[in-house]
Amino acid sequence: MSFSPLLLQLINALRCLPGVGPKSAQRMALHLLERDRDNARQLAESLLLAVEKIGECEKCRTLSETPVCEICTDVNRDNSVVCVLESPVDLLAIEQSGGFGGVYFVLKGHLSPIDGVGPEDLGIPQLLERIDQGEVKELILATNPTVEGEATAHYISAQIEREDIRITRIAHGVPVGGELEFVDGGTLAHALAGRRVIVRDKA
Amino acid sequence: MSFSPLLLQLINALRCLPGVGPKSAQRMALHLLERDRDNARQLAESLLLAVEKIGECEKCRTLSETPVCEICTDVNRDNSVVCVLESPVDLLAIEQSGGFGGVYFVLKGHLSPIDGVGPEDLGIPQLLERIDQGEVKELILATNPTVEGEATAHYISAQIEREDIRITRIAHGVPVGGELEFVDGGTLAHALAGRRVIVRDKA
Repeated sequence: MSFSPLLLQLINALRCLPGVGPKSAQRMALHLLERDRDNARQLAESLLLAVEKIGECEKCRTLSETPVCEICTDVNRDNSVVCVLESPVDLLAIEQSGGFGGVYFVLKGHLSPIDGVGPEDLGIPQLLERIDQGEVKELILATNPTVEGEATAHYISAQIEREDIRITRIAHGVPVGGELEFVDGGTLAHALAGRRVIVRDKA
Repeated sequence: MSFSPLLLQLINALRCLPGVGPKSAQRMALHLLERDRDNARQLAESLLLAVEKIGECEKCRTLSETPVCEICTDVNRDNSVVCVLESPVDLLAIEQSGGFGGVYFVLKGHLSPIDGVGPEDLGIPQLLERIDQGEVKELILATNPTVEGEATAHYISAQIEREDIRITRIAHGVPVGGELEFVDGGTLAHALAGRRVIVRDKA
Protein backbone atom coordinates (compact mmCIF):
# COMPACT_ATOMS: atom_id res chain seq x y z
CA MET A 1 0.00 0.00 0.00
CA SER A 2 1.34 3.39 -0.89
CA PHE A 3 0.80 5.51 2.17
CA SER A 4 3.02 7.81 4.18
CA PRO A 5 5.82 5.60 5.64
CA LEU A 6 6.26 7.87 8.67
CA LEU A 7 2.57 7.55 9.43
CA LEU A 8 2.74 3.75 9.17
CA GLN A 9 5.77 3.79 11.44
CA LEU A 10 3.86 5.86 14.01
CA ILE A 11 0.85 3.51 13.82
CA ASN A 12 3.15 0.55 14.44
CA ALA A 13 4.89 2.29 17.34
CA LEU A 14 1.55 3.07 19.01
CA ARG A 15 0.77 -0.65 19.08
CA CYS A 16 3.30 -1.14 21.87
CA LEU A 17 0.76 0.46 24.22
CA PRO A 18 -1.24 -2.11 26.20
CA GLY A 19 -4.76 -2.62 24.85
CA VAL A 20 -4.05 -0.85 21.55
CA GLY A 21 -4.66 -2.90 18.40
CA PRO A 22 -4.17 -1.93 14.75
CA LYS A 23 -7.45 -0.03 14.44
CA SER A 24 -7.01 1.99 17.64
CA ALA A 25 -3.40 2.75 16.74
CA GLN A 26 -4.55 4.09 13.37
CA ARG A 27 -7.24 6.21 14.98
CA MET A 28 -4.76 7.56 17.55
CA ALA A 29 -2.12 8.41 14.94
CA LEU A 30 -4.56 10.26 12.70
CA HIS A 31 -6.16 12.04 15.66
CA LEU A 32 -2.79 13.29 16.86
CA LEU A 33 -1.68 14.44 13.41
CA GLU A 34 -4.95 15.96 12.34
CA ARG A 35 -6.16 17.64 15.48
CA ASP A 36 -3.68 17.53 18.27
CA ARG A 37 -0.10 18.20 17.16
CA ASP A 38 0.81 20.24 20.24
CA ASN A 39 -0.23 17.46 22.56
CA ALA A 40 1.49 14.89 20.35
CA ARG A 41 4.76 16.80 20.67
CA GLN A 42 4.28 17.09 24.41
CA LEU A 43 3.54 13.38 24.73
CA ALA A 44 6.74 12.55 22.84
CA GLU A 45 8.76 14.82 25.10
CA SER A 46 7.22 13.47 28.31
CA LEU A 47 7.90 9.97 27.10
CA LEU A 48 11.56 10.64 26.31
CA LEU A 49 12.06 12.45 29.60
CA ALA A 50 10.38 9.69 31.60
CA VAL A 51 12.32 6.89 29.89
CA GLU A 52 15.56 8.77 30.42
CA LYS A 53 15.12 10.01 33.97
CA ILE A 54 12.90 7.55 35.79
CA GLY A 55 14.86 4.83 37.52
CA GLU A 56 14.35 2.83 40.66
CA CYS A 57 14.26 4.06 44.25
CA GLU A 58 17.29 2.61 46.10
CA LYS A 59 15.22 2.01 49.17
CA CYS A 60 11.82 0.75 48.01
CA ARG A 61 12.46 -0.17 44.35
CA THR A 62 9.51 1.80 43.01
CA LEU A 63 9.77 4.02 39.94
CA SER A 64 11.51 7.24 40.89
CA GLU A 65 13.45 9.99 39.16
CA THR A 66 15.54 10.64 42.28
CA PRO A 67 17.89 8.05 43.84
CA VAL A 68 15.49 7.74 46.78
CA CYS A 69 11.79 8.32 46.02
CA GLU A 70 9.65 11.07 47.49
CA ILE A 71 7.75 8.68 49.72
CA CYS A 72 10.92 7.21 51.26
CA THR A 73 12.35 10.69 51.93
CA ASP A 74 9.10 12.08 53.36
CA VAL A 75 9.66 12.69 57.09
CA ASN A 76 5.92 12.59 57.76
CA ARG A 77 5.64 8.94 56.83
CA ASP A 78 5.93 6.14 59.32
CA ASN A 79 9.10 4.22 58.48
CA SER A 80 8.22 1.45 60.90
CA VAL A 81 5.32 0.18 58.75
CA VAL A 82 6.38 -1.30 55.40
CA CYS A 83 3.82 -2.40 52.82
CA VAL A 84 5.16 -5.00 50.37
CA LEU A 85 3.67 -4.78 46.87
CA GLU A 86 4.09 -6.58 43.57
CA SER A 87 4.20 -3.51 41.35
CA PRO A 88 4.37 0.31 41.22
CA VAL A 89 0.76 0.27 39.91
CA ASP A 90 -0.33 -1.15 43.25
CA LEU A 91 1.60 1.58 45.04
CA LEU A 92 -0.21 4.20 42.98
CA ALA A 93 -3.55 2.57 43.80
CA ILE A 94 -2.86 2.57 47.56
CA GLU A 95 -1.54 6.15 47.48
CA GLN A 96 -4.68 7.27 45.64
CA SER A 97 -6.86 5.61 48.28
CA GLY A 98 -5.13 7.94 50.75
CA GLY A 99 -5.47 5.48 53.61
CA PHE A 100 -1.85 4.54 54.22
CA GLY A 101 0.82 6.56 56.03
CA GLY A 102 3.67 4.06 56.06
CA VAL A 103 6.29 3.29 53.43
CA TYR A 104 6.50 0.68 50.68
CA PHE A 105 8.67 -2.02 49.25
CA VAL A 106 8.01 -2.95 45.64
CA LEU A 107 8.99 -6.48 44.57
CA LYS A 108 8.33 -5.87 40.86
CA GLY A 109 6.90 -9.30 40.32
CA HIS A 110 6.25 -12.46 42.26
CA LEU A 111 8.19 -15.67 42.82
CA SER A 112 7.93 -17.84 39.75
CA PRO A 113 10.51 -20.64 39.56
CA ILE A 114 9.19 -21.69 36.16
CA ASP A 115 10.13 -18.26 34.70
CA GLY A 116 13.38 -18.20 36.64
CA VAL A 117 12.20 -15.43 39.01
CA GLY A 118 13.80 -16.06 42.39
CA PRO A 119 14.03 -14.04 45.65
CA GLU A 120 17.07 -12.06 44.38
CA ASP A 121 15.13 -10.77 41.36
CA LEU A 122 12.45 -9.43 43.71
CA GLY A 123 14.92 -7.72 46.03
CA ILE A 124 13.89 -9.93 48.96
CA PRO A 125 17.44 -10.04 50.45
CA GLN A 126 17.36 -6.22 50.42
CA LEU A 127 14.01 -6.26 52.23
CA LEU A 128 15.27 -8.73 54.85
CA GLU A 129 18.36 -6.58 55.42
CA ARG A 130 16.13 -3.56 55.99
CA ILE A 131 14.13 -5.57 58.51
CA ASP A 132 17.30 -6.69 60.29
CA GLN A 133 18.27 -3.06 60.81
CA GLY A 134 15.48 -2.98 63.39
CA GLU A 135 13.43 0.03 62.38
CA VAL A 136 10.55 -1.97 60.89
CA LYS A 137 7.78 -2.93 63.34
CA GLU A 138 5.08 -4.10 60.95
CA LEU A 139 5.35 -5.70 57.54
CA ILE A 140 2.12 -5.67 55.52
CA LEU A 141 2.23 -8.28 52.79
CA ALA A 142 -0.01 -6.83 50.10
CA THR A 143 0.92 -9.05 47.17
CA ASN A 144 -1.96 -9.98 44.87
CA PRO A 145 -4.46 -12.59 46.07
CA THR A 146 -3.32 -15.04 43.39
CA VAL A 147 -1.50 -18.36 43.84
CA GLU A 148 1.84 -16.70 43.03
CA GLY A 149 1.13 -13.67 45.21
CA GLU A 150 0.16 -15.86 48.16
CA ALA A 151 3.27 -18.02 47.68
CA THR A 152 5.47 -14.92 47.59
CA ALA A 153 3.86 -13.57 50.77
CA HIS A 154 4.32 -16.94 52.46
CA TYR A 155 7.96 -17.14 51.39
CA ILE A 156 8.74 -13.68 52.77
CA SER A 157 7.04 -14.33 56.10
CA ALA A 158 8.97 -17.61 56.46
CA GLN A 159 12.31 -15.82 55.96
CA ILE A 160 11.86 -13.38 58.80
CA GLU A 161 13.64 -14.51 61.94
CA ARG A 162 12.94 -11.56 64.22
CA GLU A 163 10.19 -12.33 66.71
CA ASP A 164 9.27 -8.73 67.55
CA ILE A 165 7.88 -7.87 64.11
CA ARG A 166 4.20 -8.00 63.21
CA ILE A 167 3.61 -9.62 59.84
CA THR A 168 0.17 -8.96 58.37
CA ARG A 169 -1.63 -9.72 55.14
CA ILE A 170 -4.16 -7.27 53.66
CA ALA A 171 -7.76 -8.35 54.17
CA HIS A 172 -9.51 -10.16 51.35
CA GLY A 173 -13.27 -9.88 51.28
CA VAL A 174 -16.29 -8.36 49.67
CA PRO A 175 -15.48 -5.09 47.86
CA VAL A 176 -17.04 -1.98 49.43
CA GLY A 177 -20.15 -1.10 47.45
CA GLY A 178 -20.29 -4.59 45.94
CA GLU A 179 -23.23 -6.94 46.16
CA LEU A 180 -22.81 -10.40 47.67
CA GLU A 181 -24.71 -11.92 44.76
CA PHE A 182 -21.95 -11.00 42.31
CA VAL A 183 -18.93 -11.88 44.44
CA ASP A 184 -17.08 -15.09 43.53
CA GLY A 185 -16.95 -18.04 45.90
CA GLY A 186 -13.27 -17.73 46.79
CA THR A 187 -13.72 -14.12 47.88
CA LEU A 188 -16.83 -14.97 49.87
CA ALA A 189 -14.99 -17.79 51.66
CA HIS A 190 -12.19 -15.32 52.51
CA ALA A 191 -14.74 -12.76 53.67
CA LEU A 192 -16.40 -15.27 55.99
CA ALA A 193 -13.14 -16.62 57.37
CA GLY A 194 -11.93 -13.07 58.02
CA ARG A 195 -15.15 -11.93 59.80
CA ARG A 196 -14.76 -9.45 62.61
CA VAL A 197 -16.69 -8.89 65.82
CA ILE A 198 -18.89 -5.82 65.79
CA VAL A 199 -18.22 -3.75 68.88
CA ARG A 200 -21.54 -2.86 70.52
CA ASP A 201 -21.95 0.12 72.82
CA LYS A 202 -23.01 -1.16 76.21
CA ALA A 203 -26.25 0.31 77.48
CA MET B 1 0.13 12.89 46.56
CA SER B 2 3.85 12.41 46.61
CA PHE B 3 4.66 10.43 43.51
CA SER B 4 7.17 10.86 40.71
CA PRO B 5 6.26 14.16 38.96
CA LEU B 6 7.67 12.98 35.62
CA LEU B 7 5.47 9.90 35.81
CA LEU B 8 2.40 12.01 36.56
CA GLN B 9 3.31 14.26 33.63
CA LEU B 10 3.55 11.23 31.34
CA ILE B 11 0.18 9.91 32.55
CA ASN B 12 -1.38 13.28 31.82
CA ALA B 13 0.22 13.47 28.39
CA LEU B 14 -1.10 10.02 27.45
CA ARG B 15 -4.63 11.25 28.07
CA CYS B 16 -4.50 13.26 24.84
CA LEU B 17 -4.90 9.96 22.98
CA PRO B 18 -8.50 9.31 21.90
CA GLY B 19 -10.27 6.76 24.09
CA VAL B 20 -7.67 6.92 26.86
CA GLY B 21 -8.95 7.87 30.31
CA PRO B 22 -7.04 8.29 33.58
CA LYS B 23 -6.90 4.55 34.39
CA SER B 24 -5.73 3.48 30.93
CA ALA B 25 -3.16 6.28 30.85
CA GLN B 26 -1.77 5.08 34.16
CA ARG B 27 -1.62 1.50 32.95
CA MET B 28 0.09 2.57 29.73
CA ALA B 29 2.68 4.73 31.48
CA LEU B 30 3.61 2.01 33.95
CA HIS B 31 3.67 -0.66 31.26
CA LEU B 32 6.04 1.43 29.13
CA LEU B 33 8.35 2.24 32.02
CA GLU B 34 8.37 -1.17 33.61
CA ARG B 35 8.46 -3.49 30.65
CA ASP B 36 8.90 -1.70 27.40
CA ARG B 37 11.41 1.15 27.53
CA ASP B 38 12.86 0.47 24.09
CA ASN B 39 9.45 0.68 22.48
CA ALA B 40 8.61 3.75 24.55
CA ARG B 41 11.68 5.52 23.20
CA GLN B 42 10.83 4.45 19.68
CA LEU B 43 7.25 5.66 20.07
CA ALA B 44 8.50 9.06 21.25
CA GLU B 45 10.84 9.31 18.28
CA SER B 46 8.20 8.24 15.73
CA LEU B 47 5.84 10.78 17.22
CA LEU B 48 8.31 13.65 17.01
CA LEU B 49 9.32 12.70 13.48
CA ALA B 50 5.70 12.40 12.34
CA VAL B 51 4.64 15.71 13.91
CA GLU B 52 7.63 17.43 12.36
CA LYS B 53 7.64 15.93 8.89
CA ILE B 54 4.08 15.04 7.99
CA GLY B 55 2.31 17.86 6.21
CA GLU B 56 -0.38 18.02 3.59
CA CYS B 57 -0.22 16.82 -0.02
CA GLU B 58 -0.45 19.87 -2.31
CA LYS B 59 -2.67 18.01 -4.71
CA CYS B 60 -5.07 15.92 -2.62
CA ARG B 61 -4.69 17.44 0.87
CA THR B 62 -4.10 14.13 2.61
CA LEU B 63 -1.37 13.64 5.22
CA SER B 64 1.97 13.33 3.46
CA GLU B 65 5.62 13.80 4.27
CA THR B 66 6.43 14.79 0.70
CA PRO B 67 4.99 17.92 -1.02
CA VAL B 68 2.90 15.63 -3.24
CA CYS B 69 1.82 12.30 -1.70
CA GLU B 70 2.79 8.86 -2.98
CA ILE B 71 -0.67 8.19 -4.36
CA CYS B 72 -0.78 11.40 -6.40
CA THR B 73 2.69 10.76 -7.85
CA ASP B 74 1.99 7.08 -8.64
CA VAL B 75 1.88 6.73 -12.43
CA ASN B 76 -0.12 3.52 -12.20
CA ARG B 77 -3.13 5.28 -10.73
CA ASP B 78 -5.94 6.62 -12.83
CA ASN B 79 -5.87 10.41 -12.50
CA SER B 80 -9.20 10.75 -14.25
CA VAL B 81 -11.15 9.24 -11.34
CA VAL B 82 -11.13 11.36 -8.17
CA CYS B 83 -12.66 10.13 -4.94
CA VAL B 84 -13.67 12.93 -2.55
CA LEU B 85 -13.36 12.04 1.16
CA GLU B 86 -13.90 13.76 4.47
CA SER B 87 -10.73 12.59 6.17
CA PRO B 88 -7.38 10.79 5.76
CA VAL B 89 -8.81 7.92 7.87
CA ASP B 90 -11.33 7.27 5.10
CA LEU B 91 -8.51 7.25 2.56
CA LEU B 92 -6.67 4.67 4.62
CA ALA B 93 -9.86 2.56 4.83
CA ILE B 94 -10.39 2.64 1.06
CA GLU B 95 -6.73 1.91 0.35
CA GLN B 96 -6.84 -1.05 2.71
CA SER B 97 -9.90 -2.42 0.89
CA GLY B 98 -7.67 -2.48 -2.19
CA GLY B 99 -10.58 -1.91 -4.54
CA PHE B 100 -9.79 1.56 -5.86
CA GLY B 101 -7.24 2.53 -8.50
CA GLY B 102 -8.03 6.22 -8.88
CA VAL B 103 -6.82 9.20 -6.86
CA TYR B 104 -8.27 11.09 -3.91
CA PHE B 105 -9.20 14.52 -2.71
CA VAL B 106 -9.45 14.94 1.05
CA LEU B 107 -11.73 17.71 2.33
CA LYS B 108 -10.66 17.35 5.98
CA GLY B 109 -14.13 17.98 7.30
CA HIS B 110 -17.57 18.80 5.99
CA LEU B 111 -19.49 22.02 5.42
CA SER B 112 -20.74 23.33 8.73
CA PRO B 113 -21.84 26.96 8.67
CA ILE B 114 -22.55 26.87 12.41
CA ASP B 115 -18.86 26.11 13.12
CA GLY B 116 -17.70 28.57 10.46
CA VAL B 117 -16.49 25.82 8.10
CA GLY B 118 -17.03 27.03 4.55
CA PRO B 119 -15.99 25.72 1.09
CA GLU B 120 -12.58 27.45 1.33
CA ASP B 121 -11.70 25.56 4.51
CA LEU B 122 -12.38 22.28 2.72
CA GLY B 123 -10.29 23.18 -0.33
CA ILE B 124 -13.35 23.03 -2.59
CA PRO B 125 -12.10 25.89 -4.85
CA GLN B 126 -8.89 23.88 -5.31
CA LEU B 127 -10.94 20.80 -6.25
CA LEU B 128 -13.05 22.78 -8.74
CA GLU B 129 -9.92 24.20 -10.32
CA ARG B 130 -8.54 20.69 -10.74
CA ILE B 131 -11.78 19.67 -12.41
CA ASP B 132 -11.66 22.70 -14.73
CA GLN B 133 -8.25 21.60 -15.95
CA GLY B 134 -10.11 18.84 -17.81
CA GLU B 135 -8.30 15.69 -16.76
CA VAL B 136 -11.01 14.47 -14.37
CA LYS B 137 -13.71 12.28 -15.94
CA GLU B 138 -15.41 10.94 -12.83
CA LEU B 139 -15.85 12.45 -9.40
CA ILE B 140 -16.87 9.97 -6.69
CA LEU B 141 -18.40 11.79 -3.74
CA ALA B 142 -17.61 9.52 -0.80
CA THR B 143 -18.36 11.86 2.08
CA ASN B 144 -19.98 10.21 5.10
CA PRO B 145 -23.68 9.28 4.89
CA THR B 146 -24.57 11.89 7.52
CA VAL B 147 -26.62 15.05 7.10
CA GLU B 148 -23.44 17.14 6.86
CA GLY B 149 -21.72 14.70 4.54
CA GLU B 150 -24.73 14.59 2.21
CA ALA B 151 -24.96 18.40 2.22
CA THR B 152 -21.26 18.68 1.38
CA ALA B 153 -21.64 16.18 -1.48
CA HIS B 154 -24.67 18.06 -2.76
CA TYR B 155 -22.85 21.41 -2.59
CA ILE B 156 -19.87 20.09 -4.54
CA SER B 157 -22.02 18.52 -7.26
CA ALA B 158 -23.96 21.79 -7.63
CA GLN B 159 -20.75 23.77 -8.16
CA ILE B 160 -19.56 21.74 -11.12
CA GLU B 161 -20.42 23.37 -14.43
CA ARG B 162 -18.78 20.97 -16.85
CA GLU B 163 -21.33 18.68 -18.47
CA ASP B 164 -18.91 15.94 -19.57
CA ILE B 165 -18.05 14.81 -16.05
CA ARG B 166 -19.66 11.88 -14.28
CA ILE B 167 -20.55 12.68 -10.68
CA THR B 168 -21.27 9.63 -8.53
CA ARG B 169 -22.04 8.93 -4.90
CA ILE B 170 -20.82 5.73 -3.18
CA ALA B 171 -23.58 3.17 -2.69
CA HIS B 172 -25.30 3.01 0.68
CA GLY B 173 -26.83 -0.31 1.59
CA VAL B 174 -26.62 -3.42 3.70
CA PRO B 175 -23.03 -4.16 4.79
CA VAL B 176 -21.53 -7.31 3.27
CA GLY B 177 -21.83 -10.11 5.81
CA GLY B 178 -24.49 -8.21 7.74
CA GLU B 179 -27.94 -9.52 8.55
CA LEU B 180 -31.02 -7.59 7.46
CA GLU B 181 -32.51 -7.98 10.92
CA PHE B 182 -29.83 -5.79 12.49
CA VAL B 183 -29.62 -3.10 9.83
CA ASP B 184 -31.22 0.26 10.68
CA GLY B 185 -34.22 1.57 8.77
CA GLY B 186 -32.41 4.39 6.95
CA THR B 187 -29.83 2.00 5.55
CA LEU B 188 -32.53 -0.48 4.50
CA ALA B 189 -34.45 2.29 2.69
CA HIS B 190 -31.22 3.25 0.88
CA ALA B 191 -30.52 -0.39 0.05
CA LEU B 192 -34.02 -0.83 -1.45
CA ALA B 193 -33.91 2.41 -3.41
CA GLY B 194 -30.49 1.49 -4.79
CA ARG B 195 -31.47 -2.05 -5.85
CA ARG B 196 -29.89 -3.44 -9.00
CA VAL B 197 -31.13 -5.81 -11.66
CA ILE B 198 -29.59 -9.26 -11.51
CA VAL B 199 -28.30 -10.26 -14.94
CA ARG B 200 -29.57 -13.75 -15.79
CA ASP B 201 -27.88 -16.00 -18.29
CA LYS B 202 -30.31 -16.68 -21.11
CA ALA B 203 -31.00 -20.35 -21.73
